[in-house]
Amino acid sequence: MMSTAGWTARLLRAGRQSPLTRCQAHGTSVQRERAFHAGSPRWSAPIDSAVGASRSARRWTSTVPTRVARVGIVVIAAGLAYSLVAPAPPVLAESPDELPPNQRLIRLDEIHEHNRTADTYWVFRGDKVYDITDWVPNHPGGEVILRAAGGSLEPYWNIFTIHQKQEVYDVLEQYFIARIDPRDLVDGKAPTGQVEDPFKYDPVRDSALIQHSERPCNSETPESELRSYITPTEKFYVRNHLWVPNLHEADSHRLTIELFDGEEVVYTVADLRKKFKEYSITATLQCSGNRRSHMTQASRPTNGLQWGVGAIGTATWSGVRLRDVLADAGLDLQEPDENIKHLKFVGAEAYGASIPIDKAIDRHGDVLLAFSMNGQPLPRDHGFPLRVLVPGHVAARSVKWLSKIVISDEESTSQWQRRDYKCFGPNVRASHPDWDSAPAIQETPVQSAITSVRRVQADQLLDSALARVYGLEEDSVVLEGYAFAGGGRHIVRVDISPDRGHTWLQAQLQEDGAKMGASGSPDDHRAWAWRQWRAAVPATQVSGKFCVKATDDSYNVQPDTFEPTYNFRGNLANAWHRVPSAKKTTHE
Amino acid sequence: MMSTAGWTARLLRAGRQSPLTRCQAHGTSVQRERAFHAGSPRWSAPIDSAVGASRSARRWTSTVPTRVARVGIVVIAAGLAYSLVAPAPPVLAESPDELPPNQRLIRLDEIHEHNRTADTYWVFRGDKVYDITDWVPNHPGGEVILRAAGGSLEPYWNIFTIHQKQEVYDVLEQYFIARIDPRDLVDGKAPTGQVEDPFKYDPVRDSALIQHSERPCNSETPESELRSYITPTEKFYVRNHLWVPNLHEADSHRLTIELFDGEEVVYTVADLRKKFKEYSITATLQCSGNRRSHMTQASRPTNGLQWGVGAIGTATWSGVRLRDVLADAGLDLQEPDENIKHLKFVGAEAYGASIPIDKAIDRHGDVLLAFSMNGQPLPRDHGFPLRVLVPGHVAARSVKWLSKIVISDEESTSQWQRRDYKCFGPNVRASHPDWDSAPAIQETPVQSAITSVRRVQADQLLDSALARVYGLEEDSVVLEGYAFAGGGRHIVRVDISPDRGHTWLQAQLQEDGAKMGASGSPDDHRAWAWRQWRAAVPATQVSGKFCVKATDDSYNVQPDTFEPTYNFRGNLANAWHRVPSAKKTTHE
Repeated sequence: MMSTAGWTARLLRAGRQSPLTRCQAHGTSVQRERAFHAGSPRWSAPIDSAVGASRSARRWTSTVPTRVARVGIVVIAAGLAYSLVAPAPPVLAESPDELPPNQRLIRLDEIHEHNRTADTYWVFRGDKVYDITDWVPNHPGGEVILRAAGGSLEPYWNIFTIHQKQEVYDVLEQYFIARIDPRDLVDGKAPTGQVEDPFKYDPVRDSALIQHSERPCNSETPESELRSYITPTEKFYVRNHLWVPNLHEADSHRLTIELFDGEEVVYTVADLRKKFKEYSITATLQCSGNRRSHMTQASRPTNGLQWGVGAIGTATWSGVRLRDVLADAGLDLQEPDENIKHLKFVGAEAYGASIPIDKAIDRHGDVLLAFSMNGQPLPRDHGFPLRVLVPGHVAARSVKWLSKIVISDEESTSQWQRRDYKCFGPNVRASHPDWDSAPAIQETPVQSAITSVRRVQADQLLDSALARVYGLEEDSVVLEGYAFAGGGRHIVRVDISPDRGHTWLQAQLQEDGAKMGASGSPDDHRAWAWRQWRAAVPATQVSGKFCVKATDDSYNVQPDTFEPTYNFRGNLANAWHRVPSAKKTTHE
Repeated sequence: MMSTAGWTARLLRAGRQSPLTRCQAHGTSVQRERAFHAGSPRWSAPIDSAVGASRSARRWTSTVPTRVARVGIVVIAAGLAYSLVAPAPPVLAESPDELPPNQRLIRLDEIHEHNRTADTYWVFRGDKVYDITDWVPNHPGGEVILRAAGGSLEPYWNIFTIHQKQEVYDVLEQYFIARIDPRDLVDGKAPTGQVEDPFKYDPVRDSALIQHSERPCNSETPESELRSYITPTEKFYVRNHLWVPNLHEADSHRLTIELFDGEEVVYTVADLRKKFKEYSITATLQCSGNRRSHMTQASRPTNGLQWGVGAIGTATWSGVRLRDVLADAGLDLQEPDENIKHLKFVGAEAYGASIPIDKAIDRHGDVLLAFSMNGQPLPRDHGFPLRVLVPGHVAARSVKWLSKIVISDEESTSQWQRRDYKCFGPNVRASHPDWDSAPAIQETPVQSAITSVRRVQADQLLDSALARVYGLEEDSVVLEGYAFAGGGRHIVRVDISPDRGHTWLQAQLQEDGAKMGASGSPDDHRAWAWRQWRAAVPATQVSGKFCVKATDDSYNVQPDTFEPTYNFRGNLANAWHRVPSAKKTTHE
């Protein structure tokens, strides 16, 4: 479940080496490198080729595959690029490698050589130079860090402001190897150059979405749009962790699959379409932060976007089955190597996450490499031209703009796998959690929400199905909402209380519009999509708040209240949804 | 999930035919029967051959397989028998078949002919005769009803007293076909005869078990015995629905597998041992009634045995994999007929239950046909010589004294599948539930309990692991307990509150002693067994009640309180376990 040689342990291991030892080691490495980079390579790189530095990164993973036969290198897009003007001609550093970092001087041009195309990566901040090679595999944000290799960290930290804190400065200081030669400094600092804003190619969004953040875009589906079984594509919630990669060519987009022995197999989207059978599944995606604001309101502040009930949506996704592609690439689905445990996904913007291998190869797992949503090509915000669709799992595993899959013995090392998407106990504080003590969220617990509360007069109810089911002859309140459980578990019951939980009645589950799994069975046992529900109660029985709670087919239920499941990230907020009975509907 | 043409519908259909129509139909049948039973067969049958009446029963199932090729008939045991003395010589009934039931007279000897070896089954009560042939497939208790065929119901109803209520009398009345000829009556009633008490062969139980009922035996493991990872075999809770079949021969015990086309394949236990590889799994079995008494105390009365925390236990079970046996018998595991949905199990005492076919054939499902428990032959109370072991599912599906498996398109029709082991909403009353509206319990929700509360003085704690983990330097309270989730979901966290749920700390999970699944993988993803835990808090922090709640790896949690998950059967009582902090430990 939780690896004993976990992530935190590896961080400590990487950081434990003394700067001196590390500097010496890399002094050698640097000299060797020079033989390869004989010229003075101009430091520039396509902004979206975040993948490809795994060779040197692998040196620090204890369980690396030994045979590395690269079949192809992923080049995702060529559109974006950034540039930095080198201010002075190259001059050899005066300091011998033996000097302590504070006395060793390095010229800017040498730093520029240690860019993402090199085998060791250097960056600078102020006048200090850092060899971050060892840090790359441990960087919570993944290989996006390579954008800065060969230059200054500062323009990136101005975009990714999460880095501007002491904890990060402390990590960086462990990799200090030298100072910049004063001849290259202006006012005591090296020129940081300009970088292009990666968010500038983000698409325009529907104005009906409720925006929680713009950069990256995080926008919620309004309640009124949660009432159709299939969520309108343009109203589907957007949860981006970084920018939207500037990808425009579908057919030529390349997906690299790295097998367990290191061999890589590359498919273009056109290859996938041509070579494999297409399947469609109707599946609900839900952010682990859905209803986080309810936890915050009922309990204490939480870190993260304060979503309401709309970080969820349902679509019909089409693509090819991941298991078919893995088998074609060379994975033995029947008897996989017993060390294979996880499948890592990397997006073109460098977002990373993983799922257990069992889910990926399960005949009923229905994991897709999807290229369409509701019959149309994926919108750019939802992963154009290719995303993973992992039904029944938290949406954070359905990686968008998919560029690479790695068959691995360990989980993705990204912060989104090893930190952000976990729940700790209500007593655990955000300052120093034991990150490895909780598993990454995969399947999600049973959830439900009220999306509409309407008072309806007796004569309007007359002869309606609801009036018949509930025997209503008087003014009533009609409630609507959704219920959903992860892991393919069916919703078997939704209970509604009109009086704060004192009495209950059962909601009417609306038709299950998602009967077909990718396995092709018309009544597959897995439930990948939500069930919507309706209920009505006489207005006279309403007292205090409405409550809703759902039950799944393992008879798991939602907790009564938030405080006992409070976690500082505010993940998986699934206590009963309580709505004031006097709540005005916004959409009727 | 829930069949629309469900059980209740079939009951209504069977009952809807008018007595006259049915009587006429069977008049013809009776005459045909006479040609076969030309002699005057003595009415006696082995008490344990409850299986074998399926031919006529099948006529009333709409989806029966058409080709019935019987390879063998299961005869489970010959030891038990009952006898009935026929009081008068046979005389032909005077009434023609056309008369209404009240005017038609039948002699006792003719009734005796309609025993379990016949194609139609008659019983009597008082002076009234009933043709129950159509009722057999709908009988909630299964084919155990055939024990009474050909004679009086009354001695059985004196044993199975659940029948002594108006609802049952009403069902019986629908099958009324005639009265007994007055020449065979004594004081207006026919002699009911004597039947052997089927419970007389029940084994002697360990005196430490907490007995909730004797006939059938339902006995709970005391808290003190829940603290070892493997529950001592003789202290393992006993949950019998009927008597313990009088089976003493292991090797020759026969298991019949009925394939979907009706063909039957028979294996003796010796065959199973010889032909298939043996596997062992450590798995927890839990009754759905575990902790029912807590629900009753916290909420309202519930129907069923009032178990405490001890209707649960863990053992290492050994046997052969069900999927291997099914494949050998002829089931295509890769592409099973799409109409195959369930696997029905029948015990030698006529208990019946079923599981979804997917669980049975899943490579990681680990369903065993077990013949040993903790390295010894199964005790008679736990299914000697053969039981099913369905890990991760409610124990009621792990059918003991296994005699028959039926590959089917529908669930078992037993009351234990279609009625007793379900949960309804807190508002649903026991009187008239819509039985089909809830699914049969299979996988169980996350559960936990406190099994020990001890006050320990500071000097006794000194240098203990608990003192180090919790930083204890003062008198403390040490808690112990277990946590378990169904479906193979791991327990990832156990939270303890020393103050009614206001503050929480994490318990220390004890070593997972069950790392091996039947699939042979040493760290199989499925968790089939409980995790035990320990925690300690300074005595000064204790206030009010201790609470415990667990979280599984889908981040499902236990509900805070019982009332909102109250169900009239008291099943799956998994609200936080609350224990008075002043509770005296009974075992230290």
